Amino acid sequence: MKKIYNPNRNSWSEILKRPTQTVADIEDIVLQVFDEIKKEGDQAVDRYTQKFDQVSLDNILVSSEEIEQAKELVSQELKDAIQLAKSNITVFHAAQKTNKISVDTNVGIECWQEKRPIQKVGLYIPGGTAPLFSTILMLTIPANLAGCEEIVLCSPPNREGKIHPAILYTADLCGVTKICKVGGIQAIAGMTFGTETIPQVYKIFGPGNQFVTVAKQLATKFGVAIDMPAGPSELLVVADDTANASFVASDLLSQAEHGKDSQVILVSTSKTMIDQVEEEIIKQVNVLPRKEIAEGAIANSKLIYVESNMEAIELINEYGPEHFIVCVEDEDFYIDKIVNAGSVFIGNYTPESAGDYASGTNHTLPTNGYAKQYSGVNLDSFMKSMTFQKISEKGIQTIGNAIELMAEAEGLQAHKNAVTLRLESLK
Amino acid sequence: MKKIYNPNRNSWSEILKRPTQTVADIEDIVLQVFDEIKKEGDQAVDRYTQKFDQVSLDNILVSSEEIEQAKELVSQELKDAIQLAKSNITVFHAAQKTNKISVDTNVGIECWQEKRPIQKVGLYIPGGTAPLFSTILMLTIPANLAGCEEIVLCSPPNREGKIHPAILYTADLCGVTKICKVGGIQAIAGMTFGTETIPQVYKIFGPGNQFVTVAKQLATKFGVAIDMPAGPSELLVVADDTANASFVASDLLSQAEHGKDSQVILVSTSKTMIDQVEEEIIKQVNVLPRKEIAEGAIANSKLIYVESNMEAIELINEYGPEHFIVCVEDEDFYIDKIVNAGSVFIGNYTPESAGDYASGTNHTLPTNGYAKQYSGVNLDSFMKSMTFQKISEKGIQTIGNAIELMAEAEGLQAHKNAVTLRLESLK
Repeated sequence: MKKIYNPNRNSWSEILKRPTQTVADIEDIVLQVFDEIKKEGDQAVDRYTQKFDQVSLDNILVSSEEIEQAKELVSQELKDAIQLAKSNITVFHAAQKTNKISVDTNVGIECWQEKRPIQKVGLYIPGGTAPLFSTILMLTIPANLAGCEEIVLCSPPNREGKIHPAILYTADLCGVTKICKVGGIQAIAGMTFGTETIPQVYKIFGPGNQFVTVAKQLATKFGVAIDMPAGPSELLVVADDTANASFVASDLLSQAEHGKDSQVILVSTSKTMIDQVEEEIIKQVNVLPRKEIAEGAIANSKLIYVESNMEAIELINEYGPEHFIVCVEDEDFYIDKIVNAGSVFIGNYTPESAGDYASGTNHTLPTNGYAKQYSGVNLDSFMKSMTFQKISEKGIQTIGNAIELMAEAEGLQAHKNAVTLRLESLK
Repeated sequence: MKKIYNPNRNSWSEILKRPTQTVADIEDIVLQVFDEIKKEGDQAVDRYTQKFDQVSLDNILVSSEEIEQAKELVSQELKDAIQLAKSNITVFHAAQKTNKISVDTNVGIECWQEKRPIQKVGLYIPGGTAPLFSTILMLTIPANLAGCEEIVLCSPPNREGKIHPAILYTADLCGVTKICKVGGIQAIAGMTFGTETIPQVYKIFGPGNQFVTVAKQLATKFGVAIDMPAGPSELLVVADDTANASFVASDLLSQAEHGKDSQVILVSTSKTMIDQVEEEIIKQVNVLPRKEIAEGAIANSKLIYVESNMEAIELINEYGPEHFIVCVEDEDFYIDKIVNAGSVFIGNYTPESAGDYASGTNHTLPTNGYAKQYSGVNLDSFMKSMTFQKISEKGIQTIGNAIELMAEAEGLQAHKNAVTLRLESLK
């Protein structure tokens, strides 16, 4: 890990640079798959499942028998853990419900805002050896609370044509309406256009590799919304002498194990803490099964010493971390002043992995500095806000003339006329 | 206008098709401008301003003298109208403020959600003979209420190198921090990368032609968020015999005058109303200055007869209109059941143009069916929601084991370890 002392403000953007991704060479294949699935539907999906997942399926829909089998294969203690997580996530996301907001903006002018569910949503869950069932909790719980009618889940089959039982168990538990064994670009294209089997959806959520990321970006060109642009996972910890170096090191490593392109950063006003954390990382990384990956990410990462809390928070807001752990004496300073972060973890007993699984907050968060302008997934991600207005005769008489003047000044005579006709009818 | 009676459900998607736009041939020039402005900054901006706006500027920043002059050029009655609109828009958007949401999801686990402003936002306001100062109200008022620190406005100069006084007056009144005389692709590229003069922003809002639309889409690839994908304006009116045919026709024409690619639709359970509205449109269109444009849009548009309110609302939800006017006896039926619409206008005295200017609701709304998944611009468009969690010793003891189990099942040992270390320290 690079140690950096008192970096000059001009060098911040260089120091805080994320490992870059190149996607240009992926775009061609993504465009091709989209094109073929748009034209040929299921037939093209099957072709690409054979090509990319090396399996041929009679039916890409998961059957109720498969779900029953999955239920038997998941241990009771994991089921209990999932249930606890589900309960906490439900409590936090249910609290995010907002009521209708209604005001009379002027005499006889009633305006209100209401949120309505996105009717059809699609979730993508990657395959591989690590089944990300926790992401299913994070996406289906708010989708159901929002009232989405159709919740489609796509996940790639393994070479035996199966999906991991923990994924099937969680999807069933959380009320997914349809599970399709389709992965990668073909899953995103399928949910974008709809095929004979895969339903077309209005918004697509969920993580994935570079192919999935580029496919989701392309989906937006065809009128489908996505949760947010994706990037490698990242964590920034701010720690002073009140922090526990061993805990801090374990948190940094927990993000580092995600992938070699993950990035972890420690910012501290204590040189001692920086040295202690460095030592702890070297000690702890050795016992990790994903040691090689974690070491790759650690190589991208930095330990940064700054002289004051003020300088620290400015640097942190410039970076905009996905996950931000605060282990300092003056917590409130950072809680009040943080503007750009996905989710914030406060105190020595709040590891980042708590938010990944079970504290109740959502783990689908903006990476790559997108915390500057994007929210993490929350209840509103599954709804859209609509406005309503009802104007009385008295109301149009109150604001009608202003509308006429403004419409005329903008050169929009028919806009004016719609008011003039009404005002004249009231004379 | 095409009259359609009792359309078969299978034909809905064909009937409700929007006029299409082709953008592929625009992408090359947009990419080129982005590339040059990224490399050369202001110099490339100047070059394209000369090329596209046919004017050469010494300084693209609007000076305080220019603003003072603009204030003198706007009539007092227009100033008063703008003030009234500003007041109503402020009342409605201020009501949208949400408080911190805080819950204990479990013993010792405090989670909360707070919204923080997007620090730097950019607004694009098109030029031309019709100065869209109303859009400045719609974007700056929520930006200021949200607490955005930097509000940059770009608008193209005319051939004399000037911006319309109503735009400058409104921008100044509403607290824009910097006004740049830059238009089209070069404005969007400038705000995406930042130049010596144009500040880089985190999110770009505002309407524009096809070039601006494609440029905003490209900006998202460089990490800038945008308000929403854009498309031509549209209006759907549902009316029964209690509606006023003359008012309905004037509303349809008010959207039709926006552009030849605008679309207006009347859905009615009354054949008499359909015939009356058709007659009124023919009568009213003749006196409009933008007659030719309105007639072009009317040619794209439809009068659709359906047998029941239930069939009507299903068809309307399938279309997802930007603006939706409800002039029927049973208003509540439509208010309760509408799921996909940008903004809803209720009753005979609520013309769509009221929402365009002065009722208080926002006029930046999802077109092209995007109401199915996107919100119109509102206070939250200028903020992002962040989550926080603070877990006590008791709290981590409550959920720690569940996290360990789930992390292990996902194959993420370091995630588990971050909890294990803490649990062991508490033994």
